[in-house]
Amino acid sequence: MRLSRGFLPTLKEVPAEAQIASHRLMLRAGLVRQTSAGIYAWLPVGLRVLRNIEQIVREEQNAIGAQEVLMPTVQSSELWKRSGRYDAYGPEMLRIRDRQDRELLYGPTNEEMITDLFGQVIKSYRELPQALYHVQWKFRDELRPRFGVMRGREFFMKDAYSFDASYEDAVATYRRMMLAYLRTFQRLGVRAVPMKADTGPIGGDLSHEFLVLAPTGESGVFFDAALEEQDWLHENVDIADHASLEVFFNGVTRFYAATDEMHDETSWEDVPADRRREGRGIEVGHIFYFGTKYTESMGISVSGPDGAQFFPEMGSYGIGVSRLVGAVIEASHDEAGIIWPDSVAPYRAAILSLKPGDEAVDALCERLYGAAPDAFLYDDRSERAGVKFNDADLMGHPWQMIVGPRGAKEGKVELKRRATGERFELTAEDALAKVLGTDGAGKDAA
Amino acid sequence: MRLSRGFLPTLKEVPAEAQIASHRLMLRAGLVRQTSAGIYAWLPVGLRVLRNIEQIVREEQNAIGAQEVLMPTVQSSELWKRSGRYDAYGPEMLRIRDRQDRELLYGPTNEEMITDLFGQVIKSYRELPQALYHVQWKFRDELRPRFGVMRGREFFMKDAYSFDASYEDAVATYRRMMLAYLRTFQRLGVRAVPMKADTGPIGGDLSHEFLVLAPTGESGVFFDAALEEQDWLHENVDIADHASLEVFFNGVTRFYAATDEMHDETSWEDVPADRRREGRGIEVGHIFYFGTKYTESMGISVSGPDGAQFFPEMGSYGIGVSRLVGAVIEASHDEAGIIWPDSVAPYRAAILSLKPGDEAVDALCERLYGAAPDAFLYDDRSERAGVKFNDADLMGHPWQMIVGPRGAKEGKVELKRRATGERFELTAEDALAKVLGTDGAGKDAA
Repeated sequence: MRLSRGFLPTLKEVPAEAQIASHRLMLRAGLVRQTSAGIYAWLPVGLRVLRNIEQIVREEQNAIGAQEVLMPTVQSSELWKRSGRYDAYGPEMLRIRDRQDRELLYGPTNEEMITDLFGQVIKSYRELPQALYHVQWKFRDELRPRFGVMRGREFFMKDAYSFDASYEDAVATYRRMMLAYLRTFQRLGVRAVPMKADTGPIGGDLSHEFLVLAPTGESGVFFDAALEEQDWLHENVDIADHASLEVFFNGVTRFYAATDEMHDETSWEDVPADRRREGRGIEVGHIFYFGTKYTESMGISVSGPDGAQFFPEMGSYGIGVSRLVGAVIEASHDEAGIIWPDSVAPYRAAILSLKPGDEAVDALCERLYGAAPDAFLYDDRSERAGVKFNDADLMGHPWQMIVGPRGAKEGKVELKRRATGERFELTAEDALAKVLGTDGAGKDAA
Repeated sequence: MRLSRGFLPTLKEVPAEAQIASHRLMLRAGLVRQTSAGIYAWLPVGLRVLRNIEQIVREEQNAIGAQEVLMPTVQSSELWKRSGRYDAYGPEMLRIRDRQDRELLYGPTNEEMITDLFGQVIKSYRELPQALYHVQWKFRDELRPRFGVMRGREFFMKDAYSFDASYEDAVATYRRMMLAYLRTFQRLGVRAVPMKADTGPIGGDLSHEFLVLAPTGESGVFFDAALEEQDWLHENVDIADHASLEVFFNGVTRFYAATDEMHDETSWEDVPADRRREGRGIEVGHIFYFGTKYTESMGISVSGPDGAQFFPEMGSYGIGVSRLVGAVIEASHDEAGIIWPDSVAPYRAAILSLKPGDEAVDALCERLYGAAPDAFLYDDRSERAGVKFNDADLMGHPWQMIVGPRGAKEGKVELKRRATGERFELTAEDALAKVLGTDGAGKDAA
């Protein structure tokens, strides 16, 4: 994209309403604009980040055999009356009456609808297990929406639901999902630590929240440093094998990790002092086993091997996709602006023309831009170099390709790595190879 | 996807509520399920088609320089009061009150919101033109939702909005969009004929609907056969050049085309008799120039070259993405089921195992499936061959790879082209090459 043509409004002033870094930076870098309290429009650059996150989430769901569907945003109250939650849900549910005075609602979550769909389609234990997910807009009518997309009212969420024939199978599904979540967050360039969460009346130990570490997090967190160090992408787990999943799960849960709500001082003191990590975290995911709560209340059963009907065991698994845009920024920024992890960055690089109109500069910039127009944001504006440097740092592209008149004459580019500030003087070809990861070093080395 | 594991409920019975072919076939082939009146959940196969259509629409919008944003589904009534449409819109607008008793609505369209966003960001004629689009769920509270996703209440739509500095520029944008639409529909494998539409108080000739020809269409259509024959993908138009766009536009609009609403018998009789085509059509797109209607009513101006403020000229451009799933089926099906055009098909081929459990059959099926698991639906169920043939015809994959015990022993596959019924006896390699388009013939030949 050529910045002169783009719908990319960067702001110099710090918006008054924004209390935390990610909210300020998302407004300043032109990622979103608020359209009503807690409701945002995504501008082109913000949307690219949202889609990158969504796609990584999707790939890791598919990798464990979950199937993607898409449920509507508007639901009938009937379903929620069947589960008993219609009256219980409270004022965060946005209730609607249509022109025929039927009670509808804007879905805050989809346990009821997916259980009903499952019941329409799946009739026998032979068709189990099933894991279904969708990535869809949800609405929760927060009394005080704040922190930008981190606690908005209309938000984008991946929610998955699983149906198993037995408790043992449901546990395996839960563990598979935990692995998918750890891999998802690692690919997003953030570390999210799984913490035991409240299971309420269900009991057991099958509820975990995933928290991204950031000083502005809403929860205090206490965890063993071992949980930060693991490489989940290369963890060798056979997801079809219950025993392998158990080894993996025990490998995660043997380390202490709790939010302040669940914190237990006695167990904490068992963690070696040099491995104790305290901080704050932002919840970006939650996995939860809840047994037959919905299948039973909604009367959804399937036939078993003996012909008798039984209620499948369920779990639900959420990732806050729009919230993650803010959480990634909270975890990865500095005074100058955002520092995008490579995997979610809207563009691989900014091309900064320090002298638009200079023949050599224009020619070199066009050559760079032409090599991968969709990967680069070309700052072709007639602005001072300082403005361009500041905007590029603010927007947080992983790389900056800086083209000035002196270098351009020799075909040279100054390459800057946003995260480290490292600078390289390279030929255009070498710069492109490094930025696009075609130099053999790949993304890992970058 | 292995059919035995998939969430793909095909139905033998014809659902009673479905009056038209696409609705019946979408239910029978397991593409969607209704969750409330006029509101649908998209099951895995239906969602794949929806995404394929969305992606083609997106690519053609990007190709003419439109930028993608994403506006929320829920809007504030304030915006609509500014344009004067809040009271005028009528009962099709789904009106909502939140917990603080503020008036919200589920967006039926986005002229107001995009004009407001534009006004926040764009201040000078130098930043024009701008064309912005999004693909988002909308809601129109139809009194009598019917025909499945063709006239649903919650529907998925691409809507684009353009802002130009002058009438001449706005006309060029309009023509560019017409080209993008013709290319989009051609790529989707349907012929959509542009027909002059009512411009209301705006006047002029800059309003066209695009209708897919199908016997169940809601409008009668009259058009010159020349409009069906053109290859828009290879039409040579320089989209940056006003004169080239004019030549293109005149080349389209010189041919008679009108819905029954706009039909004029006198002009119709000027069309040579052998080129007169009458039929019915389904509206799948609409492009519309409306000048300064919204910029003026909402007070959104930018500064001109002389420093004076002026109101940008606007147009809006819609494509019904979810409706197109139905429209494509209306235009492309037979007694046995759907016939997907290659470009939107959920899978390239079904693999039909005629004898699961037979060693040679299983091995060959696995080999075929392993070559491109994401491109194939592998019918590995223990069902009779007849059931599999019927389901494959019903679901409408462009190809069927039929594997029986006799052929499997020789490594042979029977390949069936769904659209024509042609059959080929081929080695596994040749069958894969033909189905995946790697045999040099490509998709066009298929």
